[in-house]
Amino acid sequence: MYPLPDGLFAARNQWYIAAWSEEVTREPMERWILDEPVALYRTENGKPVALEGRCPHRSFPLGRSRIVGDDIQCGYHGITFRPDGSCAAIPSQSAVPAACRVRSYPIVEQWRWLWIWMGDPALADESLIPSVDELGLGDGDHLIVSGGYNLVGGRYMLLHDNLFDLTHVGYLHMPSFGSGGGAQDTVPEVKTGPNWVSSVYTQRNVDIPDFFSRFLNFSGKVDRVQGLKLFLPCLHVGGTQISLPQKADGTPGELLGSLRVYHAVTPATRHSTNYFFAAGQSWSSDRGVSQQLFDYQKNRVIPEDIMASEYTEEMIQKSRLTSEVLVRADAVCVTGRRMFEKMIHDEMTFDPVERALTALG
Amino acid sequence: MYPLPDGLFAARNQWYIAAWSEEVTREPMERWILDEPVALYRTENGKPVALEGRCPHRSFPLGRSRIVGDDIQCGYHGITFRPDGSCAAIPSQSAVPAACRVRSYPIVEQWRWLWIWMGDPALADESLIPSVDELGLGDGDHLIVSGGYNLVGGRYMLLHDNLFDLTHVGYLHMPSFGSGGGAQDTVPEVKTGPNWVSSVYTQRNVDIPDFFSRFLNFSGKVDRVQGLKLFLPCLHVGGTQISLPQKADGTPGELLGSLRVYHAVTPATRHSTNYFFAAGQSWSSDRGVSQQLFDYQKNRVIPEDIMASEYTEEMIQKSRLTSEVLVRADAVCVTGRRMFEKMIHDEMTFDPVERALTALG
Amino acid sequence: MYPLPDGLFAARNQWYIAAWSEEVTREPMERWILDEPVALYRTENGKPVALEGRCPHRSFPLGRSRIVGDDIQCGYHGITFRPDGSCAAIPSQSAVPAACRVRSYPIVEQWRWLWIWMGDPALADESLIPSVDELGLGDGDHLIVSGGYNLVGGRYMLLHDNLFDLTHVGYLHMPSFGSGGGAQDTVPEVKTGPNWVSSVYTQRNVDIPDFFSRFLNFSGKVDRVQGLKLFLPCLHVGGTQISLPQKADGTPGELLGSLRVYHAVTPATRHSTNYFFAAGQSWSSDRGVSQQLFDYQKNRVIPEDIMASEYTEEMIQKSRLTSEVLVRADAVCVTGRRMFEKMIHDEMTFDPVERALTALG
Repeated sequence: MYPLPDGLFAARNQWYIAAWSEEVTREPMERWILDEPVALYRTENGKPVALEGRCPHRSFPLGRSRIVGDDIQCGYHGITFRPDGSCAAIPSQSAVPAACRVRSYPIVEQWRWLWIWMGDPALADESLIPSVDELGLGDGDHLIVSGGYNLVGGRYMLLHDNLFDLTHVGYLHMPSFGSGGGAQDTVPEVKTGPNWVSSVYTQRNVDIPDFFSRFLNFSGKVDRVQGLKLFLPCLHVGGTQISLPQKADGTPGELLGSLRVYHAVTPATRHSTNYFFAAGQSWSSDRGVSQQLFDYQKNRVIPEDIMASEYTEEMIQKSRLTSEVLVRADAVCVTGRRMFEKMIHDEMTFDPVERALTALG
Repeated sequence: MYPLPDGLFAARNQWYIAAWSEEVTREPMERWILDEPVALYRTENGKPVALEGRCPHRSFPLGRSRIVGDDIQCGYHGITFRPDGSCAAIPSQSAVPAACRVRSYPIVEQWRWLWIWMGDPALADESLIPSVDELGLGDGDHLIVSGGYNLVGGRYMLLHDNLFDLTHVGYLHMPSFGSGGGAQDTVPEVKTGPNWVSSVYTQRNVDIPDFFSRFLNFSGKVDRVQGLKLFLPCLHVGGTQISLPQKADGTPGELLGSLRVYHAVTPATRHSTNYFFAAGQSWSSDRGVSQQLFDYQKNRVIPEDIMASEYTEEMIQKSRLTSEVLVRADAVCVTGRRMFEKMIHDEMTFDPVERALTALG
Repeated sequence: MYPLPDGLFAARNQWYIAAWSEEVTREPMERWILDEPVALYRTENGKPVALEGRCPHRSFPLGRSRIVGDDIQCGYHGITFRPDGSCAAIPSQSAVPAACRVRSYPIVEQWRWLWIWMGDPALADESLIPSVDELGLGDGDHLIVSGGYNLVGGRYMLLHDNLFDLTHVGYLHMPSFGSGGGAQDTVPEVKTGPNWVSSVYTQRNVDIPDFFSRFLNFSGKVDRVQGLKLFLPCLHVGGTQISLPQKADGTPGELLGSLRVYHAVTPATRHSTNYFFAAGQSWSSDRGVSQQLFDYQKNRVIPEDIMASEYTEEMIQKSRLTSEVLVRADAVCVTGRRMFEKMIHDEMTFDPVERALTALG
């Protein structure tokens, strides 16, 4: 499925961000992930549980059911499932057939995220989740404000495309970021690792963008280094450093401020996406400044990204065209898409069942 | 179509409830029945008329047109049809070709219902309609309050499934019926006749459910007998008897109160259903008590059934899965579905045209 | 596609009305025409521009982008296109590949309309556009008030069908036009030319319709001559003349008033239509009278036509039936549809690419 080759949707044997910690409570919730309904809740001692969200009896949504102790009881006829997916009780009978069960997905709570593994549980290696340190989420770093969530009406790769190409900042975000963002005519430096791809956009001696000028209370020329690193398959960690221009001898100028953002992109259905967002900053020890920054992104910036993704999804579907012209700024995009493609192909090669499922499309 | 085998939708040579008497007036109305548009209205002397709801000229909906005398005049170009479906007038010409006609469906008014026959009119035998006595609608019995109607966004068999398995009362209706409903862990006694299937759930010496406790102003143990009888293809007649527990010698306890309900389920389109509802009671000669009961069901109970049906329809369509696990409480459901299946198959065998139409799906 | 034969949608090598002059400004707008997105705007000196509305880079809608000088800059990544569709700039690179371009559609401003040519630009002969004189739009004639626009949720041929058969005036427009409209039981006189079809409905010595009675402040018998002329593929010019009845010797009676209307019907998508409307009158030199007339049509009459088209579209799709009975009043309709059919076939014969595109449907 565009922008991936036909028949490819998404890798299943991967960790995806399913929810913010605070979203999952003793009230069950339904969230679609990789085109499957998932019921999320917590046991009495707070352990998160992720179960297949469709009761195998009559297809009622378990995510719209109720919790009884550590179990979830179907809201329709009361069939009850344990956190491991096995059936604890069927009201009308004492025997519980083995077939009466739901899938239980491995789920891991780390920092403020719940990571889910939708594929083969035997392969769910927690060490594959990027560590808190790797993500720059050490104690108090950047005073990150989290909790941004949107269900976006577009396929998940459009959100990745969006983040792969930051030249959009100067155009799509002109209304929110104002002038100065427009100077993003820079081809990024791209690096890749086994499960990541990063891009860095360096602009030297440019006018400080309006947005940062307001926040840092500074006018004049700066060096602006902007970058994003995607930990496949879903988490982009990014930031912008604003410094005084580097000196003639090449020594870097003083750092005026550093902005940090986290964007997580988890496929919901084939044409919709769970989109998570967090942001923080380095220049003030006042958490309220991070909150202000988060709110600005949430209310002004992210809606522009969502608009672009939804307009694009609509245009693709309505015009039935997906041809495209690639430009230099698409270097990251092309690299990133290839990594997704390879990731999906690899698991199809190794797992014929998943291969069949994925190809169903 | 799930839960029936692929290719089966609904029997046509059957009487279905089309509307409440008071719904059909001198203003025409449109109602979809068995995936066909039907225009319903009354002649000057009050006789109900059911015509194919699509003008054969330009497909304008006759149900959104106007009545002229006993005829219906298409709201677009004025072509006029008589109650028998023949064309009375074409504005631009005096000759009326035989092809310019609509189907006229046999329609019978009995008690407060209008019954329609969508199949071969030659087979429309009124004696097949369950009689008022058979339905317990004799004079003043239970002071029935009628008129409940909802267009439900789910296939009609999901509504039958709902009514086939009353163990849902303790779970789906927990919010409305409260505790006590939860004790429905009883396998029903199932009986069948040529065109009906019934189920009775007997619970002895249980706490009176909250709902009845409030209405009957009684606390303590009771015998609760709950049952439904479906007159195929559409009308469920049900009730609950609350009595003092039966005595040691087996003689029944005093009847505290009897609740009566009528649920009619008529396919609208393939994925929507006309759902009619009425209710009454035996313990008070005050019609206001029946009204209160009806209102409670209408505002609190029925919305839960509709929610379950619509959630299930959505889940089936979105997850593209219809597999299911059967439990003991599904005895009625399995029996009932088989009767629907047989009913559809039988008419396909005898009527190749209907067979082709039904298989169109 | 009904009411045309299967596989036929619409002719492309034709002039269509794309917009009212005042709709197209220095803010770009998106309008779908012949199932394609079009971005419309004006250059600094006011020249209208019509470009393919989908950025070839990432499918972002250019009609929801921004104007920079005479060019349109994609609102997503800033790729900029000139009025001729060539690419003026790609932010991340200096070289501009030839493939990075959009189609530029010939567009002509005449009177208050913008006419667009969606087919082969080499064939876009401006002389094919009906002239202002031909359309009766000479200086001050009928004091036409223009600017009516609706996006209708029905296929464009349903709007033509509507206009081809004015017998609908007496029925569909009974609520707005009132009694007297009902006397339209007259078969029209049909004439055709190479690119037009006209119909005239003459009624002699009939009661003046309520609508005209109010406007002309006259009661009694009149001659009413009503007609429409369609300049294929999109513009209907119509009018009604109300005169005193013709005399016994055949000399026409005094003209009491003449009403003029313009209806333009441009396919948006396969199931939606751009519908433009204007109206004026001859009996008062007060432009306010034309405005009143326009407002009445806009608020009362046109909504009835739209309702009929949308109801019909819905009925066709929902009932999956398109069979029809033809009546005498359909003479214009049958003639007009054949002309559309021939027009589409002709260009398919001459242009195999367009043929393939049109047949895609």
